[in-house]
Amino acid sequence: MSGAEIHIVQDWGMSDLSGLKALTFDVFGTTVDWCSGVARESEAMLGGLGHKLDWVAFANRWRREYHPAMEEVRSGRRDYVVMDQLHREMLDVALAEFGVEGLSGEQKDHLALGWRRLDPWPDVVAGMTRLRQGFTVAALSNGNIALVNAMSKRSGIPWDVILGADFVRTYKPMPALYDSAPKLLMLEPSEIMMVACHVWDVDNAAKRGFRTAYVARPEEYGVGSPYNAPAAGTYDVQVASFVELAEVLGA
Amino acid sequence: MSGAEIHIVQDWGMSDLSGLKALTFDVFGTTVDWCSGVARESEAMLGGLGHKLDWVAFANRWRREYHPAMEEVRSGRRDYVVMDQLHREMLDVALAEFGVEGLSGEQKDHLALGWRRLDPWPDVVAGMTRLRQGFTVAALSNGNIALVNAMSKRSGIPWDVILGADFVRTYKPMPALYDSAPKLLMLEPSEIMMVACHVWDVDNAAKRGFRTAYVARPEEYGVGSPYNAPAAGTYDVQVASFVELAEVLGA
Repeated sequence: MSGAEIHIVQDWGMSDLSGLKALTFDVFGTTVDWCSGVARESEAMLGGLGHKLDWVAFANRWRREYHPAMEEVRSGRRDYVVMDQLHREMLDVALAEFGVEGLSGEQKDHLALGWRRLDPWPDVVAGMTRLRQGFTVAALSNGNIALVNAMSKRSGIPWDVILGADFVRTYKPMPALYDSAPKLLMLEPSEIMMVACHVWDVDNAAKRGFRTAYVARPEEYGVGSPYNAPAAGTYDVQVASFVELAEVLGA
Repeated sequence: MSGAEIHIVQDWGMSDLSGLKALTFDVFGTTVDWCSGVARESEAMLGGLGHKLDWVAFANRWRREYHPAMEEVRSGRRDYVVMDQLHREMLDVALAEFGVEGLSGEQKDHLALGWRRLDPWPDVVAGMTRLRQGFTVAALSNGNIALVNAMSKRSGIPWDVILGADFVRTYKPMPALYDSAPKLLMLEPSEIMMVACHVWDVDNAAKRGFRTAYVARPEEYGVGSPYNAPAAGTYDVQVASFVELAEVLGA
């Protein structure tokens, strides 16, 4: 049966839009508001135990361990572990720095899993519901499948497919993670648009041949935090919400 | 940060049902009616070219290459290739046996991709929509992600997660494919119920620790084809539809 290599034409009767077939979304920051969610979860747990912290600062300190923790895996110094596990370990650093002691293992686990209880930005469900009429909408996250699924079921984020770190067992911005999306969706990279609020993520997707959408999330690190948008025209699309992205893409 | 191994408690505020958290579904036969769909697609293509075949027989002959084609991969004699590609190769065997010649490569590709255009059984979307309120509903198919996604977008099958052969690069009933589901969903096998209409599939999932649901699909091979249901009580749940499964599981 050799020689019969299939050529795929995706066809489910929806709009083509110059060949764009799928959108891959970053999750933390782009799709969900981790800062206010982690601040809320931290206050609920730690405030309830009598601690009085700057909760937004605590959330940001926790998140600051994100890239160093992933770098252990990306560098090969450590075997892949899921993001839930990294969140748990990163928490210990933040707690120590803020002088919070005496939490039980169960309390720490519950708080670390607060990253599964983050809310989407207000435009996300409405925008993605429109976008998925015309395109495959896929998570392409450093979050593991179980984490992204739990979060999405809680708040109704309507993914078609959850891709990400579990497939290649490393983390963005490693090329293998971007490359897994066209491979698994059986598309050309140029048929996929990476949607993210972090220039490092969009830039690295572009290097792998993706089209690019930058979504401004000026409150990612908290209301009133410094924010610098990329210059107009840096990416294929630059929008302020998923609803605006749906408008621009005609979905 | 060693020693801080996270313990996961799945918690999105839905029913527990004695610990059952997720349902993994077989796709071809269990979720979609491949026989009538492939017969319809074959008639549309080949009948349009003047061929007069027993379309149900043709569909069954095509499908009969399914396990032999997968066995090349399961045995390790061949590297993993996606099910779309196997469908394309299996088609050549069926066409030759039915004496159909002269199709172009594009026509064969379109027909092979007819397996992406199968319809769900009438109970599937309604039943799964109820089930996903209480459980994670995941495809655990030998179909590749792109295939299952295309099919599901076309007909509105509301998966939370698409798992399957792409993760482990082999095919059911290899244990690695079943084992990938609890690993990726971060659940115990006993927290997952395998839902399938093939006893070999349900039985092999049970060997990996899954709970089991047998769904009767007496018309899988065509209306009026022979059908033997397993004896009552063989599996945890035995139902005639996904809606009945939702009833039984209280979803």
